[in-house]
Amino acid sequence: MTNQSQAAVEQAITVRRERVNDAIPEELPAAEPERLYEATRYLLEAGGKRLRPTVLLLVAESLADAAVDPETVDYRSFPPGSGDDAMDLMKAAVSVEVIQSFTLIHDDIMDDDDLRRGVPAVHREYDLSTAILAGDTLYSKAFEAMSATGAEPDRAVQAVGELASTCTKICEGQSLDIDFESRDAVTPDEYLEMVELKTAVLYAASASIPARLMGDDTAAEALYGYGLDVGRAFQIQDDLLDLTTPSEKLGKQRGSDLVEGKQTLVTLHARQQGVDVDNLVDTESVEAVDEAEIEVAVDRLRESGSIEFARETAQDLVDSGKANLEVLPDNEARARLDDIADYLIEREY
Amino acid sequence: MTNQSQAAVEQAITVRRERVNDAIPEELPAAEPERLYEATRYLLEAGGKRLRPTVLLLVAESLADAAVDPETVDYRSFPPGSGDDAMDLMKAAVSVEVIQSFTLIHDDIMDDDDLRRGVPAVHREYDLSTAILAGDTLYSKAFEAMSATGAEPDRAVQAVGELASTCTKICEGQSLDIDFESRDAVTPDEYLEMVELKTAVLYAASASIPARLMGDDTAAEALYGYGLDVGRAFQIQDDLLDLTTPSEKLGKQRGSDLVEGKQTLVTLHARQQGVDVDNLVDTESVEAVDEAEIEVAVDRLRESGSIEFARETAQDLVDSGKANLEVLPDNEARARLDDIADYLIEREY
Repeated sequence: MTNQSQAAVEQAITVRRERVNDAIPEELPAAEPERLYEATRYLLEAGGKRLRPTVLLLVAESLADAAVDPETVDYRSFPPGSGDDAMDLMKAAVSVEVIQSFTLIHDDIMDDDDLRRGVPAVHREYDLSTAILAGDTLYSKAFEAMSATGAEPDRAVQAVGELASTCTKICEGQSLDIDFESRDAVTPDEYLEMVELKTAVLYAASASIPARLMGDDTAAEALYGYGLDVGRAFQIQDDLLDLTTPSEKLGKQRGSDLVEGKQTLVTLHARQQGVDVDNLVDTESVEAVDEAEIEVAVDRLRESGSIEFARETAQDLVDSGKANLEVLPDNEARARLDDIADYLIEREY
Repeated sequence: MTNQSQAAVEQAITVRRERVNDAIPEELPAAEPERLYEATRYLLEAGGKRLRPTVLLLVAESLADAAVDPETVDYRSFPPGSGDDAMDLMKAAVSVEVIQSFTLIHDDIMDDDDLRRGVPAVHREYDLSTAILAGDTLYSKAFEAMSATGAEPDRAVQAVGELASTCTKICEGQSLDIDFESRDAVTPDEYLEMVELKTAVLYAASASIPARLMGDDTAAEALYGYGLDVGRAFQIQDDLLDLTTPSEKLGKQRGSDLVEGKQTLVTLHARQQGVDVDNLVDTESVEAVDEAEIEVAVDRLRESGSIEFARETAQDLVDSGKANLEVLPDNEARARLDDIADYLIEREY
């Protein structure tokens, strides 16, 4: 990825993130009961790259194939100049981000995680009941938004149905992830299937739903493939970053996945190569581990070819994902979707 | 309610319950991960009257205004003889029951209840994570079903949107219910608003959605009112049954709400009449309380006019709810919807 492409993609994400951030409180206005609605916005306000809504907006922009200024275009009446046929694309964009936020809140309860985006998880900042309910409220709000885009009704129904089946798959993926914690014979393929369900399908839906809403089913299917591949690559890169990014840049202890015994594509590959993964790190708490111990462990994973295996797998997924973009008109927005795929595996945090 | 009406309504509910029970596994087939899908079906298989889907089916039958045999009619191609315009009404019926089941699973976690329908609650039979995920899976399955009825797309979008806003309100109602536990100055009106959100809106959606799907918006609005009123009456009757039905018939200790300090329309009215509700029952556990102590407490609530007040409120709601049925053609199905309203406040368990 060239410096120029990287600057362009970061700019593309930043501009659209701001637009999405402005729209979130419009879709989730303060309401009664106050504490419940505060809790629904809490994690969304704590940050997030808004990658999924950015992908959704870019796909629609590419399909509209018109010069669009992302800083000023009215995403709530899209495509520009379409008159009565216009739809509120921003509702769809916020919808996928809201689904993402609901899954994080419920996942943090299930995984008993205390921190998320540098702030206490919702069930810690509030309480268990409020966290369950905040997630449930975001869930319905996402479907309210997706059914209110004003797109042609037959397309709107398809989009809602796709969002619903996506949520089912996300639940299946989270269930597999939990099951894997108590199993030691997970294969890399099983891991990739879990990642597909837990993480990648929401990228896939974010890429395909705008095409569904705009009535292009051929594009929708190809774009689903784009999202599925880059979504899996994204998760593999997340796992790699835990091993290779210095702690101060990562915002948490490097190698914490190793300390906690989390299974990733890297450790599953290493296990297949005969590495005694369970004893790579002896220290049992993230707080007590030192950098040198992590360094030795990461070197071992490098020697077994496991880090390289994960990198190559992610690169292959990015390549196959990008091939699907040929279904889109050759324009600026398509170029940014191409860049985003690279960006997801080149980012350093 | 005449004996004849009661026999007719019980028959109407029983026949449609069986049809809904047959359809549930079709909409929630066994799938992987096996344990997750078992947990989604666990509570649905434990029982339930299926009142909400029965209301939904009866409204559609009345609007279709054709002689329909509920034992044999193909609810998946409805109305009979409508050819290409037919819709899968059973998907909508199962959808509202599945939403009900999701809310019970999550509510039982929040209320830390151990039993439901005579079996352990899902988070007790399985575990917290599985219960959260089972609820989340049912949530998306309900939206999958509601978006797949094959109804005219513009009607289908309305139905899905109405289901989504209904779920938002249910969350708001559950949040209010939790808040009320730590407040002592709840008024009867606030209680009725909570019941409207937590319980009645799903009856309202069950009554209005079939009208939306069949393209009759005028009927949909009136029927929403029917559901809202009879849904509130249903909850008030539930609270009354806890006080007035013998334990062996109730399947749990009579007066357990009093022992647990649960606020109901009865106790809130009594408090306004100056009754020291908090000390009506001294025994602190449902296991330790005896029948005589409950009898004295219930007599006190009778003397303050609170039981009669709740009964009258429920009766008024049933009367105003039934008035909305005039929007339907005068036929057998409408008569059963009329009977159901009476049945909800005359049932003894």
